[in-house]
Amino acid sequence: MAANGPAGNTCNMLQFMKLIGQLKRVPRTGWVYRNVKQPESVSDHMYRMSMMAFTITDRNINRDRCMKLALVHDMAECIVGDIAPADNISKAEKHRREKEAMKHLTGLLQEGMRKEIYDLWSEYEEQSSPEAKLVKELDQLEMILQAHEYEQLEQTPGRLQEFFDSTQGRFHHPEVLQLLKSLNEERAGHIATGSKDSQTTDSQCDRPAGTS
Amino acid sequence: MAANGPAGNTCNMLQFMKLIGQLKRVPRTGWVYRNVKQPESVSDHMYRMSMMAFTITDRNINRDRCMKLALVHDMAECIVGDIAPADNISKAEKHRREKEAMKHLTGLLQEGMRKEIYDLWSEYEEQSSPEAKLVKELDQLEMILQAHEYEQLEQTPGRLQEFFDSTQGRFHHPEVLQLLKSLNEERAGHIATGSKDSQTTDSQCDRPAGTS
Repeated sequence: MAANGPAGNTCNMLQFMKLIGQLKRVPRTGWVYRNVKQPESVSDHMYRMSMMAFTITDRNINRDRCMKLALVHDMAECIVGDIAPADNISKAEKHRREKEAMKHLTGLLQEGMRKEIYDLWSEYEEQSSPEAKLVKELDQLEMILQAHEYEQLEQTPGRLQEFFDSTQGRFHHPEVLQLLKSLNEERAGHIATGSKDSQTTDSQCDRPAGTS
Repeated sequence: MAANGPAGNTCNMLQFMKLIGQLKRVPRTGWVYRNVKQPESVSDHMYRMSMMAFTITDRNINRDRCMKLALVHDMAECIVGDIAPADNISKAEKHRREKEAMKHLTGLLQEGMRKEIYDLWSEYEEQSSPEAKLVKELDQLEMILQAHEYEQLEQTPGRLQEFFDSTQGRFHHPEVLQLLKSLNEERAGHIATGSKDSQTTDSQCDRPAGTS
């Protein structure tokens, strides 16, 4: 944070942190439109994405960079909200609004930090690195994992199929594909049984070893 | 994630990510006990803390390590819940439950990752590094910033004073102290005016420069 910045900088840091805090109160629009009760926030989503990035083992990938990309990629939504495909706003207009929001947000920071966070957001938007491409896959994977969890929580197996359909062909990284395979298997079990208790499918998994 | 792990590992990764996802649905107990409406989740809290860590400029501090500590420090709460002082559970018992939860959670991961995440959690619990100490300050700072925001949102200036009282003397790092100063100034303005519009105090801050 801005310990030694010019006058007013810490005050700007407070405004930055308050805007970041608004992400807690921006619900993810996809769930709102599908009447999910008490849907997750944008920061909930970015939190788990950053943990997905944390557990990447591919040594050709800069893991720390992935974590930062995950933390930053939806940050503009604290100002512009979570614009969903169903909102009928063009990709170009969505990008324009988010770019403006990111300029405002990062303008509250000191020069070095301003550039770092803005550049991370640009890298993700432009998909200009292997890390940005992988984090985009994590974004989609986190979404369908959440869809599956809502189907389990609401005992409505298969109801959020459209989210799975929207990600067809989007996954390429081997670690993402392996988690996707587990997810699809567990979900198929949930749909097949129409089970009210997701634990019936969990039992397919190995138990953790050496955990106590 | 576990691309090349032993059989069953990816399935365990799915269970790990599902447990992490439960943090979205664990409300922060302090707010629940004070009847805050739609309180933040534990992952909301850890998200902003990790962004606070992201903006640390102190070169004597390993910033990436702080971000990871922030992401991990409350992770056990996906299993044991957010145990608050008012729950009358001893610190030792809280630690025991969280340690067990962390062993279970990290037991779902491959060996290297298992150790890294468990060790980060231990480092924070034991406050055994300058980074862990700073992240503890960020934990407290994030809490009182959130308290202030709830007071503003609910137009109840000063109602959550006890959270501020509980942090007296807990802050030492200069960057934390500067943000604390801004926060206390803004909050004092809010309390003094009893204003329904927090923007009256925001105007004390410099406007961002060069943001468009």
